[in-house]
Amino acid sequence: MAKIEVCLSPALLNTYSLDNKIVIVTDVLRATTTMLAALDSGVKSIIPVASQKEARRYIGQAGVLVAGERDGKKVDGFDLGNSPLGMIHNKEELQGKILVMTTTNGTKAIDAARPSKKIYIGALTNLNALADHLRSGQEDLLVLCAGWKNRVNMEDSLFAGGLCDRLNDAYQIYGDAAIMTMQLFTANKPHLLDSIKQATHYQRLKNHGIEEDINYCMTLDKTDSVAYLDNDVIVKI
Amino acid sequence: MAKIEVCLSPALLNTYSLDNKIVIVTDVLRATTTMLAALDSGVKSIIPVASQKEARRYIGQAGVLVAGERDGKKVDGFDLGNSPLGMIHNKEELQGKILVMTTTNGTKAIDAARPSKKIYIGALTNLNALADHLRSGQEDLLVLCAGWKNRVNMEDSLFAGGLCDRLNDAYQIYGDAAIMTMQLFTANKPHLLDSIKQATHYQRLKNHGIEEDINYCMTLDKTDSVAYLDNDVIVKI
Repeated sequence: MAKIEVCLSPALLNTYSLDNKIVIVTDVLRATTTMLAALDSGVKSIIPVASQKEARRYIGQAGVLVAGERDGKKVDGFDLGNSPLGMIHNKEELQGKILVMTTTNGTKAIDAARPSKKIYIGALTNLNALADHLRSGQEDLLVLCAGWKNRVNMEDSLFAGGLCDRLNDAYQIYGDAAIMTMQLFTANKPHLLDSIKQATHYQRLKNHGIEEDINYCMTLDKTDSVAYLDNDVIVKI
Repeated sequence: MAKIEVCLSPALLNTYSLDNKIVIVTDVLRATTTMLAALDSGVKSIIPVASQKEARRYIGQAGVLVAGERDGKKVDGFDLGNSPLGMIHNKEELQGKILVMTTTNGTKAIDAARPSKKIYIGALTNLNALADHLRSGQEDLLVLCAGWKNRVNMEDSLFAGGLCDRLNDAYQIYGDAAIMTMQLFTANKPHLLDSIKQATHYQRLKNHGIEEDINYCMTLDKTDSVAYLDNDVIVKI
């Protein structure tokens, strides 16, 4: 039986082997949720880049939109912020476009996972779809929580635990972080939104007036989409 | 109101400020539990050293005993292993002695916390005593989990959450790791020993035939002792 492990912060990734691993990167608030919403809103593919500088090079290119935030706010000069509802509300503009995206933690976590065999993008909004897609896999899984500037956070841990919970029948829940996050998910599942109202990132984002975005990000199974990194570009399967 | 924070691994310590912080280092299985048991069994003080090489220098010195383990086993040539029950069973031998101690994770975590204002040694066995001692303090607290080779572990997280739980009335529970571990403790408190039977470190140690030691380490409030680092040496208050 293949295993599922959880890494709670990119700063702990060097204690895990990435050889032949399938890595699921999650940044629930809001990078990976936004990526899924963008793909569902008509974007053809997403190029994740680690720095604003790199993203800026794409500004004004035909067929390309640039999205990104730092510390929860849209970067000046970019077309879009890091908001799933922002993607959904700009559906017409997004059709067939390539989205270049950089965020505080999410795209950096994707970069850190590149030595692995394959990278999926995970969010609470596609938890079941992703679990169903992975259920029959033979390779070991590692959930990589993007965290907040290398600190462990509640929302990514909840996703990690949720995926373990959903795959408990098909994979061995391996290691203490996986066991702990699965317990956390089980305890908080009936009230996911409430469970992060105390969390530091919620307090940070709330000040930017994006409660509706957070509500969306903390809702299970809004989409059936599954997305992965295909030659440096994120696409739907 | 002062804050209590939780750092789940020494590898994440650089994301926290240690300035004017009181740090509580925990390595439930078994270093900090053993330290408390040794002090309660007659040891005058404990010198924590990070390497076996450094510990070896003390072998044979008058009034000194050397204790230590690597990967769960007693180091060859040392007087004692890293076992709380080993300390309790060797009470006569320990009276008035100085104990030099090195372990896989615990003493390294103590070293990492040295830039802080003060370091306490915490274990489930002295949870209430330590909480009572810290309750009226004015400085911010940081619980540092020793973890296992920088990975997050269940037993240290349970202690961290337990201390947050006990100090919830006197300190602000600050940051997601503190909230998460407090929830973990609350959920597992009725069956602490069971809660780690799935944990990786338990599986590792069980193979060394030390179930009784683990049982002792996972029992709340065996002692009223509180211990701290006083000029590089651990003593009881």
